[in-house]
Amino acid sequence: MRKISNGVPLLVVGSVAFDSIKTPFGKANKTLGGSASYFSLAASYFVRPAVVAVVGEDFRSADEKKFLDRKINIQGLQKAKGKTFSWGGEYSFDLNSRVTKFLHLNVFEKFNPLLSPNHKNADYIFLGNIAPKLQLNVLKQIKNPKLIGLDTIDFWINTQKKALLQVLKLVNVFVINEEEARELTKEHNLLKAAKGIKGIMGIMGKKGLLIIKRGEYGLLMFNRDSSIFHLPGFPLEDVVDPTGAGDSFAGGMFGYLAKTRDLSTNNFKKACAVGSTMASFCVEDFGTKRLESLKAGDIAKRLKAFKNLTDF
Amino acid sequence: MRKISNGVPLLVVGSVAFDSIKTPFGKANKTLGGSASYFSLAASYFVRPAVVAVVGEDFRSADEKKFLDRKINIQGLQKAKGKTFSWGGEYSFDLNSRVTKFLHLNVFEKFNPLLSPNHKNADYIFLGNIAPKLQLNVLKQIKNPKLIGLDTIDFWINTQKKALLQVLKLVNVFVINEEEARELTKEHNLLKAAKGIKGIMGIMGKKGLLIIKRGEYGLLMFNRDSSIFHLPGFPLEDVVDPTGAGDSFAGGMFGYLAKTRDLSTNNFKKACAVGSTMASFCVEDFGTKRLESLKAGDIAKRLKAFKNLTDF
Repeated sequence: MRKISNGVPLLVVGSVAFDSIKTPFGKANKTLGGSASYFSLAASYFVRPAVVAVVGEDFRSADEKKFLDRKINIQGLQKAKGKTFSWGGEYSFDLNSRVTKFLHLNVFEKFNPLLSPNHKNADYIFLGNIAPKLQLNVLKQIKNPKLIGLDTIDFWINTQKKALLQVLKLVNVFVINEEEARELTKEHNLLKAAKGIKGIMGIMGKKGLLIIKRGEYGLLMFNRDSSIFHLPGFPLEDVVDPTGAGDSFAGGMFGYLAKTRDLSTNNFKKACAVGSTMASFCVEDFGTKRLESLKAGDIAKRLKAFKNLTDF
Repeated sequence: MRKISNGVPLLVVGSVAFDSIKTPFGKANKTLGGSASYFSLAASYFVRPAVVAVVGEDFRSADEKKFLDRKINIQGLQKAKGKTFSWGGEYSFDLNSRVTKFLHLNVFEKFNPLLSPNHKNADYIFLGNIAPKLQLNVLKQIKNPKLIGLDTIDFWINTQKKALLQVLKLVNVFVINEEEARELTKEHNLLKAAKGIKGIMGIMGKKGLLIIKRGEYGLLMFNRDSSIFHLPGFPLEDVVDPTGAGDSFAGGMFGYLAKTRDLSTNNFKKACAVGSTMASFCVEDFGTKRLESLKAGDIAKRLKAFKNLTDF
């Protein structure tokens, strides 16, 4: 069956924000950020993703253009009365930790993701880091998903754990970082923590997997068949700004999966490598800058370097 | 040409000690330890290594038996008047940090590694973590080495940096951990730190490489051709005692290299995987226990699992 041209191969629901970032290498003021921005820009090199998010009246056409230039479907980008969600953060000298300087939810506070008929029929869905209750709302509207991914942060583990455990039962792919996995399960050993989370994921987890991100050290993927896959972070000499690395990873991964439409363990591994490649580009410049203008050749070249890095 | 039967394919000069270890999972009192013990036990699954080290009058025949059972050549294990070097350490709940409770150099204080004619003709040499001045002494006695490896710790970086830089110019393979690499070069970024160290290693480094160990996160190997190779730590559900993991890695790596006698980058990668495999066994029990009685099948099986873990 031919795919209908206005179908949505990949949908991301998350945040679109203005970020103010300071790192040891410089700063960026009020630059485009948010999980849905990084995700969709990274995914746009593989499929045409659709974004559902909310922005305020201060959202600039220059920012909108960043999505449109990458042919991202932003019909679901609601404009609400008020200001766009904004975040300010500062990184330590080694980029391994950061302090939130301010966080203004603004229009995000009343965000209620309502999906259009096209969105509801999306095949691949990714729930970026937003409140678990909103993630549940989205899932209720989805008609016939092929694969549902989920991201979260420690804030929701601490404040909406019950809703988070509910939504966790309904997704196939859960992306979480090392410390959060330990926090969620109160288990230090990562293999034991992974077992605990796979248990929570339940029957849906059987069609999918758990990815534990370890920052610059890469990731561990726990497959359905209980095998494990490891991927390092791509070694970079100049990391400028780590913001959005996790969302770019997820965007690259889901973009590749939605493009190849192959849910075998082998293809999940490749999708992880593609995701890590997109994350490695993301951190080379401030905000979404590097993700706005990559060439297909750049991606293929780094993916090959990635393979050489791990092959023995 | 046939190899002479009393030739030494692999020589390690390092410490043989009594360790008293406490981890969240139990403790071991006055158990066999030291860099040369872990190294030679791990290497013994591939070649017959020779140990040059010193022990005291309290060294037990039961400990000697551990070497002899693995057919390790301990003709170079000097017995000196006094007590054996002993160390006591306690690990944190997550095994990621440890505190030294006591450290008695004892007979090690006056250790002067004198090599027999056989030792001097060894092909593959590993200088375990001892004073850089002693490492230099050993190198002066070596006649015709094929490959020289070196390990060190932050203590020598801080107290004998000049001698360390001297010996570093004379080795092919330098094994150092992440924090120490940063300390030695005052450079946080690992790629930049690696460049700095490769610069110090000089012309000898061209025949060899730099390995930066990252604990449970694995290692990065910087090759002669400026390519990089990454290997994760093998994910284990039950890590009992991390003591000796680094020495077991080096022992497995050099044992495999001395057996295969192939110094291509590809074989270095395989040797790293073998080393990591031996390290993963080491940490599964207290002290050297697990390394004393592995079966060839155990090693092959884990090596295969390692390949599956990283292959995409």
